[in-house]
This record gives sequence, C-alpha cells and structure tokens, in this order.
Amino acid sequence: MTTSPLHDTALLERLRADNPGCATRVHLNNAGSALPPQVVVDVMVEHLRREAEIGGYEAHAEASARMDAVYASLGRLVGVGPHAIALTSSATDSWLRAFLSVPLERGDRILISQAEYASNVIAILKAAHDAGATVEAIPDDADGVVDVDALRSMLDDRVACVSITHAPSQNGLLNPAEEIGAALRGSRAWYVLDACQSVGQLPLDLHAIGADFMSVTGRKFLRGPRGTGFLALSDRALQLEPALLDLHAATWTDDDSYSLADGGARYEQWEKPFAALLGLGAAADYALDLGLDTTWQLITARADQIRAGLASIPGAVVRDRGRVRTGIVVFTVEGRDAADVVREIKAAGINVSLSAAPYALRDFRNQGITSQVRVSPHVFTSDDDVQALLDAVAG
Amino acid sequence: MTTSPLHDTALLERLRADNPGCATRVHLNNAGSALPPQVVVDVMVEHLRREAEIGGYEAHAEASARMDAVYASLGRLVGVGPHAIALTSSATDSWLRAFLSVPLERGDRILISQAEYASNVIAILKAAHDAGATVEAIPDDADGVVDVDALRSMLDDRVACVSITHAPSQNGLLNPAEEIGAALRGSRAWYVLDACQSVGQLPLDLHAIGADFMSVTGRKFLRGPRGTGFLALSDRALQLEPALLDLHAATWTDDDSYSLADGGARYEQWEKPFAALLGLGAAADYALDLGLDTTWQLITARADQIRAGLASIPGAVVRDRGRVRTGIVVFTVEGRDAADVVREIKAAGINVSLSAAPYALRDFRNQGITSQVRVSPHVFTSDDDVQALLDAVAG
Repeated sequence: MTTSPLHDTALLERLRADNPGCATRVHLNNAGSALPPQVVVDVMVEHLRREAEIGGYEAHAEASARMDAVYASLGRLVGVGPHAIALTSSATDSWLRAFLSVPLERGDRILISQAEYASNVIAILKAAHDAGATVEAIPDDADGVVDVDALRSMLDDRVACVSITHAPSQNGLLNPAEEIGAALRGSRAWYVLDACQSVGQLPLDLHAIGADFMSVTGRKFLRGPRGTGFLALSDRALQLEPALLDLHAATWTDDDSYSLADGGARYEQWEKPFAALLGLGAAADYALDLGLDTTWQLITARADQIRAGLASIPGAVVRDRGRVRTGIVVFTVEGRDAADVVREIKAAGINVSLSAAPYALRDFRNQGITSQVRVSPHVFTSDDDVQALLDAVAG
Repeated sequence: MTTSPLHDTALLERLRADNPGCATRVHLNNAGSALPPQVVVDVMVEHLRREAEIGGYEAHAEASARMDAVYASLGRLVGVGPHAIALTSSATDSWLRAFLSVPLERGDRILISQAEYASNVIAILKAAHDAGATVEAIPDDADGVVDVDALRSMLDDRVACVSITHAPSQNGLLNPAEEIGAALRGSRAWYVLDACQSVGQLPLDLHAIGADFMSVTGRKFLRGPRGTGFLALSDRALQLEPALLDLHAATWTDDDSYSLADGGARYEQWEKPFAALLGLGAAADYALDLGLDTTWQLITARADQIRAGLASIPGAVVRDRGRVRTGIVVFTVEGRDAADVVREIKAAGINVSLSAAPYALRDFRNQGITSQVRVSPHVFTSDDDVQALLDAVAG
C-alpha cells in the first residue's frame, strides 16, 4: 500500500473530533505544547474534583491501581517495564535527575551533540566546572547529525558521559540514537538520551537504543499535560545512587544512614501532581491505541508536505537536516526577521513558534543564523491547516 | 473580646460552603493534603480547558499577567516581593533547590533540628558524605523545641548550614524560627527553613525570621493543588548560584559559559504546571482574603479543642510539645497500635493519618514511639467534625 496516510480522511476526522481545539485553531506548535486529546483533560478534571471532595491523599489512595497503570503505559512507549519508569515534573526535571546522578571525577570527559539543548549544556557546564571535567561536542556528519565514527574515535576511558539530544527542538533531524548506543557498548560512559521531542512521535526502545537514561516530557508530541514528564532507566541506572533524594527515593534508617528504594522510585520524589500524571497516562494510552507507527507515518508525511509547500514559496528556506526527519519543520524567509514572520503567522490564527539561538547556541552558530520559524504538525493536522500556513507565509 | 473564634458560626458556614467536600467528609488530614476552596479547582479546570482549546504555550501567554500576580500573592504570605519567589513542584523540590545550592566544603558542619523531616535528613546525609562535611542535631529544650542557647554554643566558622523544620509534620510544636534567625545573624551559616507545614497556618515574614530560604508546599495548610510549591529567597540567596539550572534559570552565552537569571527565576525551571500554579495563586488569595491572623486563631483554637477532647478520653495520650502549638495534633492510645486506631477512625468516614518513624526517625526515637495518629483541622472544621472524631476514638 503506497497511498499517503494523509488520505485516510475518516481517521483524520476521528482524530480531530477528539480535541475541540482543532475546530477553532490551526495548532502547529506541538513541539512546544501539543493539543491534548479531550480524554486527557477529562481524566485530570475528574481527579481534581475528587481531591477537592475527599482529600488529596485519599483520592490518591483510591486511584492507586490507575496510577500503577500509568507506569505500565509509559513503559510501553519506550520498551521497558513499569519498574524502570520514574515520574517527574518535566523533561528538564527528568534529564537533571539522570545527568546529575552520573558520577564525575576530575579529568573526566563529557561528550555532547552539536545540537544539544541549552538546558542540558548549562547543567553540563556547571557539573564539569564543579568536578574538574571537560566538555566536548561530537562533530556532525555530512547529513548534519551526530557523526558516529567521530564519536567512536573520541571514546576513551575518561569519557564518563555522552549526552545526546535525540530530536532537537530546533531542527527536523533525528540523531542516530541506536548507532550511538552501539558505539558506546563496552565503554564506561553513561548514555543520557534527551528524548523530549521524540517520544510520542515514533516507537522507541530503551534497550535497543542502549541508553542508560531516556528523559521525556508529557506536553509535547505525547500530548500529555504541562508539568509532567518521565525518565526511563536501564538496569545499570537502576543500580546507581541518584543525585536527588527524598523519603520516597530512600528510607532514613539510622542517624547517619539511608537505604535506596528499588526501581524507578529512587529517581522520583514523593509528592507528585497525580491529576496531571493520570492525564499523562491517558495520553500514553491514546497514543498506544492509535499506534506509534501510525503516528510516525502521519506526522512525518504531514511534515514533508509542509516542507514541500514551503520550498515552493519564493524566499522561504527549509532548514531541516538529517537522514530521518521528524515532525519538526524549521525555515527562514530571505530578508525577513523570523520574529516578524512568526508574528504575522500568529496574527492569522495559526500557532507556530520562534526558534532562537539561546535554545541551542552551538547549532545556531553552526548554521549561521540566530532565529527561525518552527512549525510542528501532529496527527490531527489537516490539509486545510497546512494550506492556511502556506497562505500566511506566502502573504 | 475573649469569645472563642470558633463561635463565629456565620463565618464557619461561609468557609464550609466554599468547599463541597465539607458536606460529605470529616477531613482532618489538612497536614497531609487539605481540601482546597472550590475557586482553586475552578481556576485550574478553566486553564486546563483553555490549554486544550488554544495550546499550552498560547494559554500561558494569555495568562501572563495572572501568573505575575501569583508571585505577588505568594510573596505576601511570607513578606517578600515577587522577585524573591521561585515556583516549584513541591516542598521537597523547593527544599532541595535551596539546600543543594548551599556551598559545602570538606570539614564543614551542618546543623539540623531534632524533629527534622526525613527527606531533608536523607539529602543532607548524602551531601555531607559527598563533601566531607558532618551533620549534628541541635538539642531540644525543656519544651521540646530547638534549644536556641545550645545552637548558639554550637556555632563556629565551620557551620555552613542550619536546617530547621519549622512546624514538624509529626508534632504540634512550632520551632522558634525568629530566635534561631537572631542567633545566626553574623554567622556564615545559610539558614534553610522548611516551612512546609507552617505557611498557610500563620503570618510569616522571611526577613523578620532572618532565613535565607523558606521552602513551601501548595497542598497542605495553604489549600493549593498537589504538585505545587514555592521557595522564598533572601537577598543573599538571590546572589548564589543554584544547584539546578536550565535555560530559564540561566542563559547559555558561549561554548563554555552561561549567565544566571536575576531574581527567583534562577531557582526555577522553565517548564511549570501553569494550571496548578494559577490554582496555587487562587489558594494564596483566598488565604490572604480571610487573613492569616484569623486562620491561625481558628486553626489553633480548633486544635486545642481537639487536644482537650482527646485528653478526656481514657487511654488517649496527646503528644504535642512546644510553647506555641500549630494545627497538628498527635496522639497515641495506650495498648493500641496506632495503625489500627487510624484504620478505625477512617472506617467512620473521618480522614486522619498515620505518623510513623520513617518520616522523622530521630524525633520518634527521642519520644520512644514508632507511630502515632495525626489529626489536622483547618478553618472549615466544625464542632460536629470534632465530635465525630472523639466518638470514633472513644469507641
């Protein structure tokens, strides 16, 4: 079957009906914060009301089995069991809980991707400074993704950590996570994969990738609530002592001792936004029901359609790199400030975002630009949505 | 006027009408997670729906002025301006962001209260181990609170941090925060006050107390949502480099450098649960409208009423210490396991909680018990609620 998945209009109608926002907005900012399916909102509202009726702890106890199911659903998104999932408050929270737990010594080396997200780099620079370690960026290859041969040649016993931004926020490229994992096999390096923009777009498997940590947000392509995220953990990571501990992650056992919790709990904190996390579970179930393969086909076909449309507009320059491209589309317009272009597109009732150098300084410098327009469709994006965008850009 | 504030039945009726749960539950677990006023739920639900309609980033931009007001309202609770507030995901998140930012060197000393909360102690033990510092507990005085004279005699130039649990989760005592602050004036020690159980009960002032950091949760006496908290910061704390950084707390400026944000933002992360934080702001406004003085009078009078009632039940032993007592009441029943007593009270439709040694190991050991029943009324607690509790305990 070679028909474009975009031609399944019955599926599209159903997907659009699952969110009321589709009827009134052209939402092409799913890499910022996606429109959630209505069920996500309903689940959250129901739990918030229950908390107000019977008490927050009491509502949590009542929802205990449903909370267990959230771990299982999130685990299915990334190929791990529920015990290897830690619930967090964001991708950044997930990533920091992972990276700060990696043991660092004076003289250690930390390798990062050229497209590394600013939050990661800032935390890495601080940790390297504190520990006396160094930070080096792995070169990109001719396609603009992490050069795995170059990475292989950089590896030695001093490499303590390799941090990779899987699907950069500022480009449609997908870094070769599995090839990087294969290159790292047998090294001492801890492999931290920032999967903030990739989980929810395509099927992923922590073990196949070979990562120690995979950090994820709820609100982007997964279509979960703001203020949620999770961390997927390798067996090795589950043996490590995490950097951030509380009485849920560990138990106080004597005046000067504590014991660590088993499983992902050791990377969590006790207090959680349970309504939002139940919503996150509903978002994961929705994604699993639709299927991540289907989602990936729909999102990438739609992104390609947008790239082709933009390429036909005089002056518009699509800036996506990579061999495999995600649902993120970035472009500039010759002679125009990207911020102005974003403003004009938004004025037409279309949600897009400005992608600017502070979010990924090294990558922007490599590309010789300081800002660009970012467009990120999802499975509910329609031909009309795309046409509205193209009209606004052409206008 | 010597009338008990509990006799203002018109006020009580109004306060009870503000939450539907009051009609169906006897909620005496406000030190766990309080029943929020209905307005808190309404504000959250409204924002969640708006996010689903127009997008998460777009709804945040629309609510920008209201988010600014949240900082101002929270600041008013603790006597600081909005620039000295950092929004977090819990008291633990607040506390860790504070404590982990305190610079520690080999040979430094960390002083803690006897009643210190387990989460704090676990993180302190880890940090002390990593840095080569020591941890010492300040003795209690005859009333069972931090002995300020003893603290004064312990101080020297090696004391890097003093961590105090203001209103312990496991006792009705209130530690003398201001006297501790006065004792610390002029020392190098960073003063971290865990105000998780005190903010929302009584008026507080960071500067009058002299603390560097005050960590707070949303869900307890403040009656805000789960998964929210904040940190109040002294001028000195606002100059420190925080331990946890992202692209909101800092800006990536060059390959190996970043600059810190001004104000409380440097202790925050970019991603936040905005619906919940708007709810937290609504909870703060509700508390400020009622007045923290009024709240404190109502809560403490109600707690004293409960203590008196329990004391008249044969076998019941009220275990609260301190010169000033909060809305937390703890007791045991001679010859009965506290867990069984809690179970029986809950079976009568009354929300209370079990307070057990792992939450505050040293304090429980000092008291020679391993568990107790905790009862925590709020301003909406009625005479009937109290009688239901006493009947259940007597039964």
